[in-house]
Amino acid sequence: MTNPSGRHFLQIPGPSNVPDRILRAIDRPTIDHRGPEFGALGREVLEEIRKVFRTRHPVVIYSSSGTGAWEAALVNALSPGDRILLCETGHFAATWRQLAERLGFEVEILPTDWRRGADAEQIGALLAEDRGATIKAVCVVHNETSTGVASRIADVRKAMDAAGHPALLLVDTISSLGSIDFRMDEWGVDVTIAGSQKGLMLPPGLAFNAVSDKALAASAHSRSTKSYWDWQDMLAANRDGYFPYTPSTNLLFGLREAIAMLLEEGLDAVFARHARHGEATRRAVAAWGLDLQCVNPEEHSNVLTAVVMPEGHDADSLRRTILETFDMSLGAGLGRLAGKVFRIGHLGSFNDLMLSGTLAGVEMGLELAGVPHRPGGVQAALEHLAATATAARRA
Amino acid sequence: MTNPSGRHFLQIPGPSNVPDRILRAIDRPTIDHRGPEFGALGREVLEEIRKVFRTRHPVVIYSSSGTGAWEAALVNALSPGDRILLCETGHFAATWRQLAERLGFEVEILPTDWRRGADAEQIGALLAEDRGATIKAVCVVHNETSTGVASRIADVRKAMDAAGHPALLLVDTISSLGSIDFRMDEWGVDVTIAGSQKGLMLPPGLAFNAVSDKALAASAHSRSTKSYWDWQDMLAANRDGYFPYTPSTNLLFGLREAIAMLLEEGLDAVFARHARHGEATRRAVAAWGLDLQCVNPEEHSNVLTAVVMPEGHDADSLRRTILETFDMSLGAGLGRLAGKVFRIGHLGSFNDLMLSGTLAGVEMGLELAGVPHRPGGVQAALEHLAATATAARRA
Amino acid sequence: MTNPSGRHFLQIPGPSNVPDRILRAIDRPTIDHRGPEFGALGREVLEEIRKVFRTRHPVVIYSSSGTGAWEAALVNALSPGDRILLCETGHFAATWRQLAERLGFEVEILPTDWRRGADAEQIGALLAEDRGATIKAVCVVHNETSTGVASRIADVRKAMDAAGHPALLLVDTISSLGSIDFRMDEWGVDVTIAGSQKGLMLPPGLAFNAVSDKALAASAHSRSTKSYWDWQDMLAANRDGYFPYTPSTNLLFGLREAIAMLLEEGLDAVFARHARHGEATRRAVAAWGLDLQCVNPEEHSNVLTAVVMPEGHDADSLRRTILETFDMSLGAGLGRLAGKVFRIGHLGSFNDLMLSGTLAGVEMGLELAGVPHRPGGVQAALEHLAATATAARRA
Amino acid sequence: MTNPSGRHFLQIPGPSNVPDRILRAIDRPTIDHRGPEFGALGREVLEEIRKVFRTRHPVVIYSSSGTGAWEAALVNALSPGDRILLCETGHFAATWRQLAERLGFEVEILPTDWRRGADAEQIGALLAEDRGATIKAVCVVHNETSTGVASRIADVRKAMDAAGHPALLLVDTISSLGSIDFRMDEWGVDVTIAGSQKGLMLPPGLAFNAVSDKALAASAHSRSTKSYWDWQDMLAANRDGYFPYTPSTNLLFGLREAIAMLLEEGLDAVFARHARHGEATRRAVAAWGLDLQCVNPEEHSNVLTAVVMPEGHDADSLRRTILETFDMSLGAGLGRLAGKVFRIGHLGSFNDLMLSGTLAGVEMGLELAGVPHRPGGVQAALEHLAATATAARRA
Repeated sequence: MTNPSGRHFLQIPGPSNVPDRILRAIDRPTIDHRGPEFGALGREVLEEIRKVFRTRHPVVIYSSSGTGAWEAALVNALSPGDRILLCETGHFAATWRQLAERLGFEVEILPTDWRRGADAEQIGALLAEDRGATIKAVCVVHNETSTGVASRIADVRKAMDAAGHPALLLVDTISSLGSIDFRMDEWGVDVTIAGSQKGLMLPPGLAFNAVSDKALAASAHSRSTKSYWDWQDMLAANRDGYFPYTPSTNLLFGLREAIAMLLEEGLDAVFARHARHGEATRRAVAAWGLDLQCVNPEEHSNVLTAVVMPEGHDADSLRRTILETFDMSLGAGLGRLAGKVFRIGHLGSFNDLMLSGTLAGVEMGLELAGVPHRPGGVQAALEHLAATATAARRA
Repeated sequence: MTNPSGRHFLQIPGPSNVPDRILRAIDRPTIDHRGPEFGALGREVLEEIRKVFRTRHPVVIYSSSGTGAWEAALVNALSPGDRILLCETGHFAATWRQLAERLGFEVEILPTDWRRGADAEQIGALLAEDRGATIKAVCVVHNETSTGVASRIADVRKAMDAAGHPALLLVDTISSLGSIDFRMDEWGVDVTIAGSQKGLMLPPGLAFNAVSDKALAASAHSRSTKSYWDWQDMLAANRDGYFPYTPSTNLLFGLREAIAMLLEEGLDAVFARHARHGEATRRAVAAWGLDLQCVNPEEHSNVLTAVVMPEGHDADSLRRTILETFDMSLGAGLGRLAGKVFRIGHLGSFNDLMLSGTLAGVEMGLELAGVPHRPGGVQAALEHLAATATAARRA
Repeated sequence: MTNPSGRHFLQIPGPSNVPDRILRAIDRPTIDHRGPEFGALGREVLEEIRKVFRTRHPVVIYSSSGTGAWEAALVNALSPGDRILLCETGHFAATWRQLAERLGFEVEILPTDWRRGADAEQIGALLAEDRGATIKAVCVVHNETSTGVASRIADVRKAMDAAGHPALLLVDTISSLGSIDFRMDEWGVDVTIAGSQKGLMLPPGLAFNAVSDKALAASAHSRSTKSYWDWQDMLAANRDGYFPYTPSTNLLFGLREAIAMLLEEGLDAVFARHARHGEATRRAVAAWGLDLQCVNPEEHSNVLTAVVMPEGHDADSLRRTILETFDMSLGAGLGRLAGKVFRIGHLGSFNDLMLSGTLAGVEMGLELAGVPHRPGGVQAALEHLAATATAARRA
Repeated sequence: MTNPSGRHFLQIPGPSNVPDRILRAIDRPTIDHRGPEFGALGREVLEEIRKVFRTRHPVVIYSSSGTGAWEAALVNALSPGDRILLCETGHFAATWRQLAERLGFEVEILPTDWRRGADAEQIGALLAEDRGATIKAVCVVHNETSTGVASRIADVRKAMDAAGHPALLLVDTISSLGSIDFRMDEWGVDVTIAGSQKGLMLPPGLAFNAVSDKALAASAHSRSTKSYWDWQDMLAANRDGYFPYTPSTNLLFGLREAIAMLLEEGLDAVFARHARHGEATRRAVAAWGLDLQCVNPEEHSNVLTAVVMPEGHDADSLRRTILETFDMSLGAGLGRLAGKVFRIGHLGSFNDLMLSGTLAGVEMGLELAGVPHRPGGVQAALEHLAATATAARRA
């Protein structure tokens, strides 16, 4: 599309479509990061962001990609050589594993077939066997962005408690925070890892660690080499709303607006909206006669839907057709799923008609790319959306 | 919708969705309207805008609503008491008539049933009878925004020529310019009236008169009282790129960008895009089993589609449901069509997926509002869009 | 300056520097001008703008240049052939006169030497002589933008009252509203004419008529031909917050923000700020040894300062030097003052350091252009600013 | 200032004033970081940014603060326990030292009195003594932001060459790049560390490592634990214009614009502009009778000027007065200079009149805060600016 008209449909599972209100908040002159106006901004966002994590604990905000927040969580909470248990639910969990190994941790993998979430029972069993508590942390990706599977974190915590194991629970909510239900304190999460460019509706560039008392206490004994990621420096400076080094001021302007938008809509309403869109999308996929990558109905992600391509058809070719013909970006299959699935993002600043346009683009793309399917996916989605619209509106 | 998520669908037939690129061009510090930077801007837009009108004649740019450009055309080209022939093709033509009468012109009405365009044959016949050439101008709305009917201007000119009548041809292209084919010079239009907020994709606030030599000559003898609208002052100042009084500088920044966007896509490609979307929309309406306000297949507007409500159902109630449930604005029925039709705008900065979302919103709205219809309109539109997508992309 | 760095200094006496907050408000997607969101916007700005005019009467908002609002005031309040008394205080008053004459009014001129304001006594005397009340309106420019002279409107009203004359009082506040004290109701002004691009800090494109009961009553009998400018259509539609034709929605977004900014700072604080900057500027001019165009100390404008060039030196050449060397725009001499004065705007969104930079540019420009002057103007201004800064801050 | 009018003067030595053109470039919808449009953006900025570093070597772009780029340089080029020679020219060099020590490097300090730059001779002598080449890297801050002293990097390289020592040369150009002359390849710098928020005129959030062949070769043998900062991952992905993890897309939009602006003005013109402003500022300080923190005339920074407070007067109290009274932010004294100096930033998107306003604010602030000084600093600066303006314009 050399001269596309209208809006691009950015339907990858993040970065999500940044609302104008946030873009305009970012489009303000940068201010003195050591002055009183910044201090007030810092105090406000550091306080309010806790509501989105549903925590009363401090949230550390980094200028970095989400990847950085993975690293930060590990090097603060743990020491080199520490054993961690990591559920490899998909490509991003696998990448986290690599990162952990490069940083010198000993990673115990709980593999999956990349079509289901973390197995709480299995985690519990493994921890129960770990009599000497050699496992220092359990790492789970809440919403595995590469597969569209959401792990049940509360169950993982229950299993850990049942095993009476002291390991820390580290959860990656990079693609779930602000889109699907997450309750840091209630679920007993020790470190929550997040990023700006998904449910928070910001451009990429900020990453987060929310830190429980237990994790903070653990960090006091960490022997990991670190400087940029050090929680202590951050927390000390954050007390007055400042940062130990020049923060991404303009993204923080946007964050203030993002938090306000989420709280205005209400977190529960935000989650219900994502759930409704997830269900409508899955109905479309079913109507097309295609398979979901996620095979467990209790673990469907409401953030994105990963669709399995029929044998012999290439997902990337389909995505290219859709991009060039309909100016819509979809997510690629990643890692071992490359070419085998495509991913539809339905998160962030999104509504029924944007979803309808999105599914229309997929259905027309399947047709144009010659991918075997039944028409009627959009129709099925519309029926669900219409049937549930009034209740959604009242909510 | 107290806390709508995602983008509003502004599917009234203008103002159309303003693209970010234009909004960002407008969002620049205002400059000195008498300085050299402004002069260069003025010269550029005054020169380039001609291409959009397909004219080599001057285009006068007013800070005003489109309504102002109607008044400007009349008070410059004509004198009080002059007879004009005006085809009342709908609400906007009727409003233009009122304005003309208030300004002291004697308006001869060529009525229609508001379901078809200007009748060229009838115009020709009336002019042929007007031996004394007492009719000074023929006024036609190119695209009647209230009905979704596009009059065939070239035919009107042919009929005038055939009658050998010297009347000026004044054409309102407020909702057609930059969306459907219009050729000022080739079609022999004397004054073209236009506005910024439709095919030009700008916010409202600018209005235009493109002026033929004949109209300019006529203006020299006009006895109409005028000051703000006077072409002479404008044309004199415009010679160097300036304006006789402070112009809407920031909207002119946007106009420069809008012209660039239209020329980058190519006017013919722009028209083809609108035509394809118009056809897809009409197929949706047919599939729903609803009637179009426009009854002549040769006169369908590709800018908007006016849909007739089934007897006993109120269009405004439907529109309210759609606005409140799906955050989409549709056009109301105007004047005698109030409550009887609703209008779907598919113009300006627009694409296949935005149209799909738009039609989805209408189809779901019909369902929710209990308006008798058959489902499948979106499906019918998608079939047309998919079938023609490849050709559209190549064009 | 082919590649200027930093901010342009737009120090013409309007358009003034548009603050980012207003530009960003304008940079929002256009909304349906007939929908409920617009209605709320319209009602808010139509209500709140009255506070800026210090009136309880309705304010009509046009999409037009300020020039249009001159025309609107005349054609609504008066009838063709009506006699009006117009104080020709400078170029803009002279332009208003021309406009009035073209519109068919009989204009009685009260000339000045363009170095002082309207002579209230003389007005009173003339009205007293007009036993038959043939004069229907007295027209005064509050702040004459071409000379930097502010007429004393309260005195004019007193003189009119003393003469017991029923003429309407029409006041042009295009460059004074929101910058210097103006009290429509208290001063008995019948029609206040204003524009968006000066004290209101918006880009050009909106113009205003605030209308007293007496003016409204007079308009009922007006025989002037009009349509676009008709108060009645506007007031009828405005009742619910709407407009009779598509308004400049995005500028209205900006107007809402502008009003909020003025009221947050407080109108009295805004006026005091302008007064302090006017005084500092005049001290700089005095230190340079140059003359002010305004010769009456009671009538100095706090919006702009017009400086008389020494004999044999061309103001436009100086302005060109300053523009090309320091990227600052100053106002030209207009009409009979062309080349003879230059004008420094110090209005709108402005502060001490911007003024300091402005005066520095003038002082360096005088030096570079070889204009005879004494250095030290900036220094004199700084002394005044510093001496009054603490009080200003407390206010 | 609860309701400041006009523009804030952000005259800290970075973040610098972000030009509207860059803010508006950032204010665009985020795009797919794995799609073709992003690839083109990535390739362009990765290629063009080299011109700003004056290098033909690759530049790695991190989402992070400048601090992160310090860490990145060390952990890629070196191994734990490596000895480095670091010239402690001021607070930022001292902070870099702390960071290096925390990361496990053995830091040899070359202290200064924080009033002059790195002593090339001393470096040469130390290296000459280091027969076993145990020193692996020499670390120098090009422009010490805390003191306003610019070290002469070319001299450092010459001294290293003269000593025939193989240590890498790591240079922090966080506050110099794009403001004062820096030539990575010509001067033989091995790793250049930079940030987005100073001479690059962007908001904070991006940081840079430009990497010589020698540094790249050294990194192959680095035993430092790292993941986020690893050059290899970056360089591999960068080859096609992509990044190993979600980059700060919107800041990269801004970076493209920033590079374009620097190249349009011309790097040499940019440096000359900063030099002229630096000199004017120093003349103002001299006229005030105050001392510069920098005592070596060959090492004056043209980015900022650190001014020493007279004994018994607190710099922070002065800065507060200036912020509250004139809405200008100045830089605080840092570390051991806290309260003892204030710093005037004159970098980035800046011009003569902004500088004049800045110095006016300082001079008035000195007066209001009761700091002993002679008036006339602004006047002295204006004389220099005027005297050199014509040449500057021609350049």
